[in-house]
Amino acid sequence: MDKRPIGIFDSGLGGLTCVREIMKIMPGEDVIYFGDTGRVPYGTRSREMIIKYVEQDIRFLESFDIKAIIIACGTASSAALPWIAEGKTAKIMGVVEPAAKMAVKATRNKKIGVLGTSATVKYGKYVENIKSLCPDAEIIQKACPMFVPIVENGYTESPVAEIIAKEYLSEVKAAGVDTLILGCTHYPLLRKVIGDIMGEGVTLIDSGAAAANCAHEFLKAEGLLKGEGEACEKGRYRYFVSDEVEDFSQLGGVFLERPIDESVQKIDIEKY
Amino acid sequence: MDKRPIGIFDSGLGGLTCVREIMKIMPGEDVIYFGDTGRVPYGTRSREMIIKYVEQDIRFLESFDIKAIIIACGTASSAALPWIAEGKTAKIMGVVEPAAKMAVKATRNKKIGVLGTSATVKYGKYVENIKSLCPDAEIIQKACPMFVPIVENGYTESPVAEIIAKEYLSEVKAAGVDTLILGCTHYPLLRKVIGDIMGEGVTLIDSGAAAANCAHEFLKAEGLLKGEGEACEKGRYRYFVSDEVEDFSQLGGVFLERPIDESVQKIDIEKY
Repeated sequence: MDKRPIGIFDSGLGGLTCVREIMKIMPGEDVIYFGDTGRVPYGTRSREMIIKYVEQDIRFLESFDIKAIIIACGTASSAALPWIAEGKTAKIMGVVEPAAKMAVKATRNKKIGVLGTSATVKYGKYVENIKSLCPDAEIIQKACPMFVPIVENGYTESPVAEIIAKEYLSEVKAAGVDTLILGCTHYPLLRKVIGDIMGEGVTLIDSGAAAANCAHEFLKAEGLLKGEGEACEKGRYRYFVSDEVEDFSQLGGVFLERPIDESVQKIDIEKY
Repeated sequence: MDKRPIGIFDSGLGGLTCVREIMKIMPGEDVIYFGDTGRVPYGTRSREMIIKYVEQDIRFLESFDIKAIIIACGTASSAALPWIAEGKTAKIMGVVEPAAKMAVKATRNKKIGVLGTSATVKYGKYVENIKSLCPDAEIIQKACPMFVPIVENGYTESPVAEIIAKEYLSEVKAAGVDTLILGCTHYPLLRKVIGDIMGEGVTLIDSGAAAANCAHEFLKAEGLLKGEGEACEKGRYRYFVSDEVEDFSQLGGVFLERPIDESVQKIDIEKY
């Protein structure tokens, strides 16, 4: 039993889809979330810059006594996790490996699609991870740079989401994938429009939820869970951001599918 | 006659619409352009953060021997210019005052619309400037957060631009404005779709071009132009960015309406 919180970070709000899953499957765990809202988006940045940001995000989370860190961001997991320095005090997990595992488990025809930011597609870490588990898988990647602004500006139900999604999905749909990784933690908010276009036969893999499940397995196996079952007290959540607190509190509720009642604090991430 | 270059900066590519106008009206002037592509967009950031960024952008430009600085960014001009410290070595101009002046000159019915980023609308500097020149003007502001991603991802000709523009423009159109300020230097790339929706009777004010014209007047009046007329040699342009050089070279040409053949250099803006 380990009462220390789990640290989670993302370039902004997307990682809250991972927190939502943690609330569901590990309701007793305490969480410290950092959303780098002052420097969002990461998906269009260079690798050098993403690594610098991720190192700072990790240093911030390590300023607390935490037991594990989840990089709940497809871009950061793809562009930085394989390159960040060893010797961190907490176990660090990304979203790529868990989502790749889940996709390989789900596919029947071995045709897997990957949606992600420009950086995520560029570094091809989903492809690499899928290939290592299933060398004969056929993988089709697609960069979806408009999805994050669509989600962050509340256009998930708009015809705009449909037009852009149809365009982005045309190749993966034509390729006949039966499994599609939502490789950026913002994308589960577009699950309905993506699901409608892809059709019922296609399994959508939520990378944030996959990471939460993977973290659950790890913590359980290592005996690091705070506790399980009904006797366990409800987890506590603390949120930190690098820009306006108000924006995060408002929009964050959409990602969590429940209001953010807890305190949200602004920090200067450049100091870490 | 002053051979020193003009320094221009923007959060990213938008300010190139100002450079384009300078190439047209002051073809002899040398320009040093900084696009803060590593930290774009500014429009969703807090004022505190925008001021910090703008101070650094100015310090970078002041590391050259320049005669004037144009803040070719609606957000930075609105959220930072009125608050940045005195004592800069070069004359600093923004886009707000020039665009407001031009709008007041253009309007016949004294109904003026202002389109800008969330931060620009929040700080209301266009409104303040218009009111000081024409106290009985009726001004309608509208934040257009999707316009920058639409422009930066090349959707200016797409039905998506039309749907979003129709939504954003419905209030200013209903209010019967005869003059509309494109208060973010990205927006001139949406001039066609905005013009089609607003109709022929509405004058569109390009804030980047307005700033270039204002800078021209200032430099002329102060005797600071490098030279004018046919005898004047063509200006030299140097571009600096805070992230990937390639992306800037490619997309920048769309803003300039000519290819970027000159060298583009990456700098670490956090050092300034």
